[in-house]
Amino acid sequence: MTLSQIDEEVAKLLQLKAQLGGDEGKHAFVLKTAKGTRDYNPKQMAIREKVFNIIISCFKRHGAETIDTPVFELKETLTGKYGEDSKLIYDLKDQGGELLSLRYDLTVPFARYLAMNKITNIKRYHIAKVYRRDNPAMTRGRYREFYQCDFDIAGQYDAMIADAECLKIVYEILNELDLGDFRIKVNDRRILDGMFAVCGVPDEKFRTICSTVDKLDKMAWEDVKKEMVNEKGLSEDVGDRIGEYVSMQGGQDLAERLLQDRKLSQNKQACAGLTDMKLLFSYLELFQVTDKVVFDLSLARGLDYYTGVIYEAILSQTIPALVSTPAEQNGADEAGVNVGSVAGGGRYDGLVGMFDPKGRKVPCVGVSIGIERIFSIMEQKAEASSEKVRTTETQVLVASAQKNLLEERLKLTNALWNEGIKAEVLYKKNPKLLSQLQHCEETGIPLVAILGEQELKDGVVKLRNVVSREEVDVPRADLS
Amino acid sequence: MTLSQIDEEVAKLLQLKAQLGGDEGKHAFVLKTAKGTRDYNPKQMAIREKVFNIIISCFKRHGAETIDTPVFELKETLTGKYGEDSKLIYDLKDQGGELLSLRYDLTVPFARYLAMNKITNIKRYHIAKVYRRDNPAMTRGRYREFYQCDFDIAGQYDAMIADAECLKIVYEILNELDLGDFRIKVNDRRILDGMFAVCGVPDEKFRTICSTVDKLDKMAWEDVKKEMVNEKGLSEDVGDRIGEYVSMQGGQDLAERLLQDRKLSQNKQACAGLTDMKLLFSYLELFQVTDKVVFDLSLARGLDYYTGVIYEAILSQTIPALVSTPAEQNGADEAGVNVGSVAGGGRYDGLVGMFDPKGRKVPCVGVSIGIERIFSIMEQKAEASSEKVRTTETQVLVASAQKNLLEERLKLTNALWNEGIKAEVLYKKNPKLLSQLQHCEETGIPLVAILGEQELKDGVVKLRNVVSREEVDVPRADLS
Repeated sequence: MTLSQIDEEVAKLLQLKAQLGGDEGKHAFVLKTAKGTRDYNPKQMAIREKVFNIIISCFKRHGAETIDTPVFELKETLTGKYGEDSKLIYDLKDQGGELLSLRYDLTVPFARYLAMNKITNIKRYHIAKVYRRDNPAMTRGRYREFYQCDFDIAGQYDAMIADAECLKIVYEILNELDLGDFRIKVNDRRILDGMFAVCGVPDEKFRTICSTVDKLDKMAWEDVKKEMVNEKGLSEDVGDRIGEYVSMQGGQDLAERLLQDRKLSQNKQACAGLTDMKLLFSYLELFQVTDKVVFDLSLARGLDYYTGVIYEAILSQTIPALVSTPAEQNGADEAGVNVGSVAGGGRYDGLVGMFDPKGRKVPCVGVSIGIERIFSIMEQKAEASSEKVRTTETQVLVASAQKNLLEERLKLTNALWNEGIKAEVLYKKNPKLLSQLQHCEETGIPLVAILGEQELKDGVVKLRNVVSREEVDVPRADLS
Repeated sequence: MTLSQIDEEVAKLLQLKAQLGGDEGKHAFVLKTAKGTRDYNPKQMAIREKVFNIIISCFKRHGAETIDTPVFELKETLTGKYGEDSKLIYDLKDQGGELLSLRYDLTVPFARYLAMNKITNIKRYHIAKVYRRDNPAMTRGRYREFYQCDFDIAGQYDAMIADAECLKIVYEILNELDLGDFRIKVNDRRILDGMFAVCGVPDEKFRTICSTVDKLDKMAWEDVKKEMVNEKGLSEDVGDRIGEYVSMQGGQDLAERLLQDRKLSQNKQACAGLTDMKLLFSYLELFQVTDKVVFDLSLARGLDYYTGVIYEAILSQTIPALVSTPAEQNGADEAGVNVGSVAGGGRYDGLVGMFDPKGRKVPCVGVSIGIERIFSIMEQKAEASSEKVRTTETQVLVASAQKNLLEERLKLTNALWNEGIKAEVLYKKNPKLLSQLQHCEETGIPLVAILGEQELKDGVVKLRNVVSREEVDVPRADLS
């Protein structure tokens, strides 16, 4: 039995106990959140807000609008979009009316939105929670309810310009989040398909071999080859030929070299992909991001709907709690990207057409930031740092050392609020000065406005700096 | 058949058709969002962001932290909290494991959070979507998925100070949203209960009579009385006595007058409520909000968990599309408040104790802003106004009138991004100047940075004001 199975059994038993009355009667609730989910406490929310602000600023700097879609969709909207991962979709109970499912990502609802509203051009971001009945690994930021931060560009444009902007955005965000060094791997589905073709993989095995190649960042080549040969039925030869290609990494030069490759250059798909890769790198050069971007033929990515460029960003620094255990290495993580990566995306030119009654296509390219892992890292950094995370923005606490001054405290607080100053007052008639000062120290309020009989008579407020303990009398008229 | 029944039938038939292949084969999706839900387009999101900013600023000004909880809870967490409205809860399908339901409000998850984490003091806000399988009336802002903006103060404090701050917050938010004149009705559950007792309502009928009284803002007194007498079995006399009380409105003076009332003053509950009401008004006076607050004995509110002060804010101005039709007048709206109201709340001192294994109570008071109705009003105002709502914040479009300058445009755009300037560039090799200027006009971008051979040679950029059409040459060095 695993730990989580035990937890689940315990929860079931306690639930049963509660139904039967339990030892406390009506109070015998199971006090927990649903499996794989968590509450965010104020400190976590402060970190979340900081991360979102950086990401949203970047999206806005690139001229994106934002949209929102419902948390559930008609079940059939999600059907046939996620391959075998469909089993991870949460369905709603049939309570009469439509059959509904919780969204699994933001990309399919986006495609549905475009088709439904006949939108052919948009640059939008969408930050919202998605749901997957996966095996949670919460210490590493893998949840059943988690945020996705998606940025996508839809429209028929000249090649690779929008694709390059998506990579620029990943670069900017990872830089600004200050998570240490990182790399962004790029590849192209057409290059992969062309490579499989020239290596002698039968057409119908492209997708399944693609999934196996996708494991190269967690498995040694020998094991990947074994899977290809023993499980997926490729010959040793074909495996070895794939092995040669997928060990290649480089930049624009590699694209140029492969365009000269005797076999690959014969394949139309591969040529189209390589030509675009060359163009992409020339734009990435202009965007000054080539120091972190690697053309990596082993990058495959899980989702079926990609049709062109694909990419994935990986942090170089490994943070202990974020390293996966071997038992967990088989799953894709919460952003649909491999364990270790913090962003991923690519071009999906066919998805919107799947929703359009006439099959009209809207080319799209986008990126999804794996925000839960970033939250986990930021939380650990905050824990390790001596700096305290403030959860409120209160500038001043209105306090008194003397009794019977509640009304005066409320009056002053009200005046501060009316001036737009963030102010608090304790909800006590006669709080002790010490407990008022303690409240400031605990929550990081920098100033106390102290009222006493003398201050009232003099028409002043004693402003005290909580840290330095300096005090200064300020005329009431100057405060409000 | 009602319109929504027809919609549902049509959707079912189309769904069936899609399953059977339909006339378009695999493309025969039903392109819609789930019943009672909607997408937010970029314009609606811009309005939503504006409204949220005002509300969050106010919550922060009052020193609140924020938390977040999962969109679903264990089913039993919600059980027994909503009375007969429980039928409106969305359940998730049993896919093995725990039984889950979508949250119905933010108050019950908040109480669960406090009990689970043994928190006895917190001032928090929570803005998130909640779910009710109600009859949607979407043109009036009534949805099955909708936002709640909750602010609550938990803790054992001296009477009425926190309660007064909640009313101050409603006052500030409605003022700042600029929705026209409004009133905030206040009452107290203990006053209502005391009033029912002295009027001769049997104890077991308090709650059901309370529900009937709650309809007074939509029904004439005669009809309310009829319901009490004919459906709920009160005598004419008892009904008339209630009628006398519930017609009363006033301020602190009314509380004082009722404390002298021969019958009410004999009732312990009523006296406690009236004494607190007097105190509340004295604090509201200090907070300078009594011009909008009315002590109204007809205010009852629907939810069972209130134990003390209750309140509800109503806009004075009626906006045509927001007026309810008689057929829809029976339901409570999306914020659990009556049709017409935009905020509501009260004191609930027993709810957290329902979750605590030892039944330990944490007194709470809070307010919920009925944000969907406010969105509807703001959207209608935006429609009616000539001012265009911008959906992006882009400051400058990098453009060119000449061919073959894509690389130069990308280079300049990159430089602007690196300086933190919000910039866009069209994803075309050789876009026409006209289409570049049109993009600015459509999306409200104020400036165009125009590049040409001459400008490149001179090391300048031609900055054009889109509205005034003024142009000025700026040295490249000054831009980036």
